[in-house]
Amino acid sequence: MEGGGDVKLVGAWPSPFVMRPRIALNLKGVEYDFLEEQFPAKSELLLKSNPVYKKVPVLIHKDKPLCESLIIVEYIDEVWAASRPAILPTNPYDRAIHRFWAAYIDDKWFPSAAAIGKGEAKTEEAKAEAMAQMQSGLKLLEEAFEKCSQGKSFFGGETVGYLDIALGSFLGWIKVLELMSGTKILDEENTPLLFGWAERFCAHDAVKGVMPDVEKLAEFAKVLQTRVSVN
Amino acid sequence: MEGGGDVKLVGAWPSPFVMRPRIALNLKGVEYDFLEEQFPAKSELLLKSNPVYKKVPVLIHKDKPLCESLIIVEYIDEVWAASRPAILPTNPYDRAIHRFWAAYIDDKWFPSAAAIGKGEAKTEEAKAEAMAQMQSGLKLLEEAFEKCSQGKSFFGGETVGYLDIALGSFLGWIKVLELMSGTKILDEENTPLLFGWAERFCAHDAVKGVMPDVEKLAEFAKVLQTRVSVN
Repeated sequence: MEGGGDVKLVGAWPSPFVMRPRIALNLKGVEYDFLEEQFPAKSELLLKSNPVYKKVPVLIHKDKPLCESLIIVEYIDEVWAASRPAILPTNPYDRAIHRFWAAYIDDKWFPSAAAIGKGEAKTEEAKAEAMAQMQSGLKLLEEAFEKCSQGKSFFGGETVGYLDIALGSFLGWIKVLELMSGTKILDEENTPLLFGWAERFCAHDAVKGVMPDVEKLAEFAKVLQTRVSVN
Repeated sequence: MEGGGDVKLVGAWPSPFVMRPRIALNLKGVEYDFLEEQFPAKSELLLKSNPVYKKVPVLIHKDKPLCESLIIVEYIDEVWAASRPAILPTNPYDRAIHRFWAAYIDDKWFPSAAAIGKGEAKTEEAKAEAMAQMQSGLKLLEEAFEKCSQGKSFFGGETVGYLDIALGSFLGWIKVLELMSGTKILDEENTPLLFGWAERFCAHDAVKGVMPDVEKLAEFAKVLQTRVSVN
């Protein structure tokens, strides 16, 4: 196993995107140094390592920086291919389906969630619309879960895989949104399969140490909203 | 070689996104049936095969549909792995870098180009801003080319690869934008490496048969703009 010295992750504890490579590294049993950014400042290391987006996470492996959370997860899967489990499915068709839904989560589903979380949806109507979009997205992901999991515990089958990581990294923030809005989002009635999956995901050994505490996350969300409304 | 019957591509000739899997299939020497959509109508096959986005391209391989152009290109690379060339680099770090810039092109660079092309940038100021964003993006991609190509002909080295396909698929539209705006976008002075690369890319055997004629594309752009301004 490589020691932490070779592998560094520039991150921040509340970020769902940072959680993704952390879970992947845990799955592969890779030790790493977690270099935590002090919100809202950005370190010299971050600015130098990700000059295009200036965002966490950045994985620094043998002094080479890599950016974008899902690209980092694929990189981890490829570099530590010999360490089980494989994070992406091995079959090309299944790989493409996992990539499709992961991109859907980031490109389509997350913006509705962010609009509520960051307070961008200002009117009651806009909030209701963003909430409905987020929930109809989860309905689609419920169907995707049924197809991908084939009756097993995770999108990836017997264990946590790429698509589990892509969606599961948002579970903490989903709970915060439920708290803030007083509305159930991941609902046993509407999305029973995802409801059960979420419990198994959060209890997984590779996940439980990096999933943030909901109350602490809710406190952070308040700070974030104050900053957004001041700016 | 698999016959066309097993491999179908639902597409449209002016779409840069459709050009991507076409180039990948050509590189791998895979024959396919090109099922052309009649703009602006959408076929039953398209709606059924891509219910989430209802967009081309869709690759149908052995009756299974796959969506999203770059995901399809990776799929083609994986399914026809035995056919040279490899489309993605083989080294995990290089693969991650190719994926990073390909995502940059679609997420950051393309929206500025689309804002001009679709006439979304209405004022002179908005047009100038979108044009400047597009050009500063190309400067970044010029630097990326220098690092990725290592003095060779393409991002992928000796032959066309993933990142060549991601950016090269827009070359026809860049020429149309140059025509429409009277401004040089891919400029020998500002981006000399990309300027030379673009000529090599368009002349490549896997590309030249699918790169649309600029005048025909400019005609189509006018139809598109009229429709946008009517809607």
